[in-house]
Amino acid sequence: MKITQVEAIPFAIPYRKPLVFASGEVHTAAHILVRVHTDDGLVGTAEAPPRPFTYGETQASIKEVVESIFAPAITGESPYDRELVHARMARTIANPTAKSAVDMALWDIIGQATGVSVTQLLGGFTDRMQVSHMLGFDEPEKMADEAERMLETFGISTFKVKVGRTPIELDVAVCRAIRERLGDRIELYIDGNRGWTASESARALRKMDDLDLSMAEELNPADDVLGRRWLVEQSTIPFVADESVSTPADVTREILGGSATMVSIKTARTGFTTSQRVHHLAESLGIEVVMGNQIDGQVGSLCSLAFGAAYQSTSRRAGELSNFLDMSDDLLATPLEISNGELLVRQAPGLGLDIDEDKLTRYRQDR
Amino acid sequence: MKITQVEAIPFAIPYRKPLVFASGEVHTAAHILVRVHTDDGLVGTAEAPPRPFTYGETQASIKEVVESIFAPAITGESPYDRELVHARMARTIANPTAKSAVDMALWDIIGQATGVSVTQLLGGFTDRMQVSHMLGFDEPEKMADEAERMLETFGISTFKVKVGRTPIELDVAVCRAIRERLGDRIELYIDGNRGWTASESARALRKMDDLDLSMAEELNPADDVLGRRWLVEQSTIPFVADESVSTPADVTREILGGSATMVSIKTARTGFTTSQRVHHLAESLGIEVVMGNQIDGQVGSLCSLAFGAAYQSTSRRAGELSNFLDMSDDLLATPLEISNGELLVRQAPGLGLDIDEDKLTRYRQDR
Repeated sequence: MKITQVEAIPFAIPYRKPLVFASGEVHTAAHILVRVHTDDGLVGTAEAPPRPFTYGETQASIKEVVESIFAPAITGESPYDRELVHARMARTIANPTAKSAVDMALWDIIGQATGVSVTQLLGGFTDRMQVSHMLGFDEPEKMADEAERMLETFGISTFKVKVGRTPIELDVAVCRAIRERLGDRIELYIDGNRGWTASESARALRKMDDLDLSMAEELNPADDVLGRRWLVEQSTIPFVADESVSTPADVTREILGGSATMVSIKTARTGFTTSQRVHHLAESLGIEVVMGNQIDGQVGSLCSLAFGAAYQSTSRRAGELSNFLDMSDDLLATPLEISNGELLVRQAPGLGLDIDEDKLTRYRQDR
Repeated sequence: MKITQVEAIPFAIPYRKPLVFASGEVHTAAHILVRVHTDDGLVGTAEAPPRPFTYGETQASIKEVVESIFAPAITGESPYDRELVHARMARTIANPTAKSAVDMALWDIIGQATGVSVTQLLGGFTDRMQVSHMLGFDEPEKMADEAERMLETFGISTFKVKVGRTPIELDVAVCRAIRERLGDRIELYIDGNRGWTASESARALRKMDDLDLSMAEELNPADDVLGRRWLVEQSTIPFVADESVSTPADVTREILGGSATMVSIKTARTGFTTSQRVHHLAESLGIEVVMGNQIDGQVGSLCSLAFGAAYQSTSRRAGELSNFLDMSDDLLATPLEISNGELLVRQAPGLGLDIDEDKLTRYRQDR
């Protein structure tokens, strides 16, 4: 089996409600759908979300690097030979979500060719993940309303609250409102997207010490090297590195450098092949992980779910798998459905992605 | 597909020439052949070599733990779900080669079920490995003779010399004799199997400074913690941890503790699933690896080859894949053949192991 063609299709689907956080905001899912074709007619699919504020990629940069550089470099190779494909793609630096979409599309092909789900190809620890929901900036009572609605509608009981605003009291009030509204029925953690300084972060953590937060993510910038170490050293809850660890080598540096005590794994930026490395590294270093969300659509969420369910440590915590709920529409013919706070792995070969071609035609931007 | 039965078959095949080294000697390959059966009639096969001087396992302990503990714990599960199977086996500590044989037999099944080689399932970087040959204790000229014969007969040009005897001059003379005989046509490295002290090792390295050794492995015990660090700190060639790193956590400890600068990966002790972890950890930490040999027969050597060819860093150096040459016979119907110093990955589903049932009947010890 050989790779014959690699497509990069830009599409845009509006959000019903924009997601606002310290490092940016997202109004439209303007992503790239990557499709890898083979000589025996199989098509592997994945999605690359451009996140200029995190990785520097744009929709145009992803389309160009996939079609002009990666496609000719890997056409003719076997979809099984991911290590060879990655060595070819590694000649071009950066471009993490573009590389990851190609990688995940290859795994989708391998699963289809072998009749096995990607979760089982990866390790098959379980068939489901609990879902964590992300709450973007808003008024305290509105955010508590949303959390309550998520708990009642979908059974979601883990919430990641976006923080990082100043004065810090804005976000402290939000966390307190949510905890007061929902009590110990929920798990609550925070993500600063580098919006605070080290001292603001330390003050905020002290002010929320009674709220039983389970994790704190990227409260201040990792490039504030000493301030970050000082903050992590004093934190009594795990400090999650996310956008500061986009490669395995970054994980090594930040964890050994004392800049974090946990890592977020995002298949959107490390695909399946490199996410395996991050997972295996984290496990070998003895640190915990959480499956993160790159503000993925349903295609990307299905990829995170497929990976997260494959391993014990990735499925132990709720994964951030619900951002798609705020999109006005999506590309899957069979939409993802969260119930009892869980998403089930699709029992289909590969990723089980059934793209609705009519919707793709409606939302694609290149025709 | 479900696991229905797990067999552990003891067998013994004499060596033509015993292999002697600092921590022991091997006269007979008295191993366990592990066979995992499934409800659709597939049979996965791998071999567990008891190495009491390294892991504390015996032929009897492997047979017992596989048949009495692992078999009931995993029967009924899917062979794809390695992470679940490993979680079950992990309830029993130690027993690395027993666990690894079960793991590799599962991958063999997955390969057969999907029609894909294990090398491609793992990553498919290349289809071959260069072979390194291990030279056990003997007189300098005899060891140089063996190296020369290996170079002329099989094209093998990388040699690992067992050292660790006292006085150290015995081994220095061997290395010098081999280098003088074969010059710069060969790569030469040494393995002390913890036979020397730190100061003996340092003296020996200085005396061999002109011999262009490429690596030094386990010259002194890792449990001589400070002596080992002192030695590794001053070594100008990579210092390989082997028997001191039988788990990923050990790799983390020994590398971060400054007790080694490289690791040996042996599928006999970490199978494929945990060898992936060791490989990914080593790559993420930025250290080099070498594929080692647990004095494997052809079954075990084929497993090392299958893994080593899957990745760039494991296939970059010659792998230790030739110990089987000294066995008087073996179990494969189609024997491994080294030519031009290389072994080729079998282009067959799974591991491509074709056990000669007549030979198994002849060598098995339980009937």
